[in-house]
Amino acid sequence: MSERFLVEYTIWGTETQASARAKDICLEQTVELPESLVPKGFIQDFVVGKIEEFYPIEHNISYRATISFAIDTASNELTQLINVAFGNISLKPGIRLERLIFPPSLLNSFQGPRFGLEGLRKYLNVSRRPLLCTALKPMGLNAKGLAELAYQFAKGGIDLIKDDHGLSNQVYAPFTERVKLCVEAIARANAETGGNSIYVANITAPYPMLKERALQAKELGAGGMLLAPGLIGFDAMRALAEDNAIALPILSHPSFQGSYVVSENGISHFALFGQLARLGGADASIFPNFGGRFSFSKEECINIRDGCQTDMAHLKKIFPTPGGGMTLERVSQMYELYGKDVIFLMGAGLLTHSPDIIENSKYFRSLIEDS
Amino acid sequence: MSERFLVEYTIWGTETQASARAKDICLEQTVELPESLVPKGFIQDFVVGKIEEFYPIEHNISYRATISFAIDTASNELTQLINVAFGNISLKPGIRLERLIFPPSLLNSFQGPRFGLEGLRKYLNVSRRPLLCTALKPMGLNAKGLAELAYQFAKGGIDLIKDDHGLSNQVYAPFTERVKLCVEAIARANAETGGNSIYVANITAPYPMLKERALQAKELGAGGMLLAPGLIGFDAMRALAEDNAIALPILSHPSFQGSYVVSENGISHFALFGQLARLGGADASIFPNFGGRFSFSKEECINIRDGCQTDMAHLKKIFPTPGGGMTLERVSQMYELYGKDVIFLMGAGLLTHSPDIIENSKYFRSLIEDS
Repeated sequence: MSERFLVEYTIWGTETQASARAKDICLEQTVELPESLVPKGFIQDFVVGKIEEFYPIEHNISYRATISFAIDTASNELTQLINVAFGNISLKPGIRLERLIFPPSLLNSFQGPRFGLEGLRKYLNVSRRPLLCTALKPMGLNAKGLAELAYQFAKGGIDLIKDDHGLSNQVYAPFTERVKLCVEAIARANAETGGNSIYVANITAPYPMLKERALQAKELGAGGMLLAPGLIGFDAMRALAEDNAIALPILSHPSFQGSYVVSENGISHFALFGQLARLGGADASIFPNFGGRFSFSKEECINIRDGCQTDMAHLKKIFPTPGGGMTLERVSQMYELYGKDVIFLMGAGLLTHSPDIIENSKYFRSLIEDS
Repeated sequence: MSERFLVEYTIWGTETQASARAKDICLEQTVELPESLVPKGFIQDFVVGKIEEFYPIEHNISYRATISFAIDTASNELTQLINVAFGNISLKPGIRLERLIFPPSLLNSFQGPRFGLEGLRKYLNVSRRPLLCTALKPMGLNAKGLAELAYQFAKGGIDLIKDDHGLSNQVYAPFTERVKLCVEAIARANAETGGNSIYVANITAPYPMLKERALQAKELGAGGMLLAPGLIGFDAMRALAEDNAIALPILSHPSFQGSYVVSENGISHFALFGQLARLGGADASIFPNFGGRFSFSKEECINIRDGCQTDMAHLKKIFPTPGGGMTLERVSQMYELYGKDVIFLMGAGLLTHSPDIIENSKYFRSLIEDS
């Protein structure tokens, strides 16, 4: 008789349809049998999901169903926890996972973010202001060119200088050479400025190379890891976060996760980029800011901020990291929305404000410090 | 100047919108810079994606864009190949990836399915008829109970007896005990019938345990692996497929992949459950059959069949494996649609036809052999 965890869903349809879908979730996510075939007793009473709440959001249009599952169904595994919460029903239209409500007895199986908000601030020696992040690009530039950019960003005071998420191990700028040169360039700039900029290497890689690349990046002096859980799975990110031999902060990237959020089906921004990113050990969750070149609304961005910082027992709060098409002109608007506990990710914006990248970076930094 | 691969997209919108989106894909999936900032020369000429074809499917409603990318952008990595084809643009509505067209020089980086259609037939010693598959359930039953079911299915002549995809390492039926008992039960039935039924263990697991569970299953005598690439990533499946120490056939399961196909955004059934499953080394691709408890249409199921068997250089063809809510009454309809090169997956149907599971299984088998 294990404790239970809760999952909140929005279900679209008439009351009859939505109610049938809620009952279906209880079976589909556990026993995968029609109700008539479920063995009486323990399995029917505890293993099958239970509707704890069901009420209209908009009558005959959408309903909120809160369903509980026995903790044992998740087997202390993040893969299986996600499977129970949204595995097979991802294939059924009209259902969105809104929020995970987990008791400490379930969360005890997961360490969550190694650094979190406070840890990453200490790591970077930045006590109160928002952190600044930028991306090394474009793909096609050689390692020397990317390192030169990294030097300029660090010289201008950008805290986290990450690989663009498309930089893997291409012949243009092979992983080892790139990490080595970027680490050196940033160290040189830090020595000149007395700053603490770090290089965040893209570790997203084929399954057999993930840990190897993370260890190599660590050994070469990288200060953090960029990982795309949509490509490698949330659990691979979690494993790298918990690995004491690596022990680097993680920025999670939303690549290949958009299909979960671009229609009414799927997973809420709150749960996907907030709660699941934290279960996966991310210290910062990158997402496309509203008003940029992607389609997220202001409200969706607020939901991500909240998912990064909502209470989840011992799981640390993390940095929402809005980016994508950000420009210097929008800094104050974002500062207002996200407050101080945010990482501002600016890519192309730092290249266009003026031809001088060091000056652009300093200007970006000054905007934050003045605000 | 590497060769290029092609990706076909459907883009929704007016001609102006769709054309802008096609141009955006070329930049977003490679350099992530506005056009004005792309360095002239090599990067602009080769690294940025190129629109090779653009024409209306329905004027001012939907357009087909075929975009080419340099093979080098994919870095010989399945993670990065998927990233280029549909990483960031998954976050932008109005785009669906329809089809991957890869030259042999790209596909040479991937072994694809180890067994494929012909290999799995030989492995199971079934030369012409469709293969039969069923699932051990429900979650909550103990290992002894699941093994007893496995015995009955094997006794009735079901070829592939797989774990339900929700069976992981729960206390109800821990992995090692379950694999051991199910393997023994099926071996006992095979000895009695002279048959070749195999046990397909669910290997979907946390990142650090994947290979360990696969090797353990192999050692204990499991005949195949069930893997959910939506939960572990396509590349983890690929790595297990290519691992010569394991060398077991793979059934891929669609859990947590539904969000890619339930709206007009995302990935086509053809590419996701056909082409990507094969790149990930699956020998059979499980999906919800039309008319069952899921929502796939007949046309979508035909597309999966075609994606499993379309020409992809040396990558072997694989078995489409329709399942979910199948009943004995529908066998002939499905046989007509999928032909002989199919695995019929029947779960609850085998439990309900009559109270005798062995007889139900024999009846299912006889329907296939007579047809």
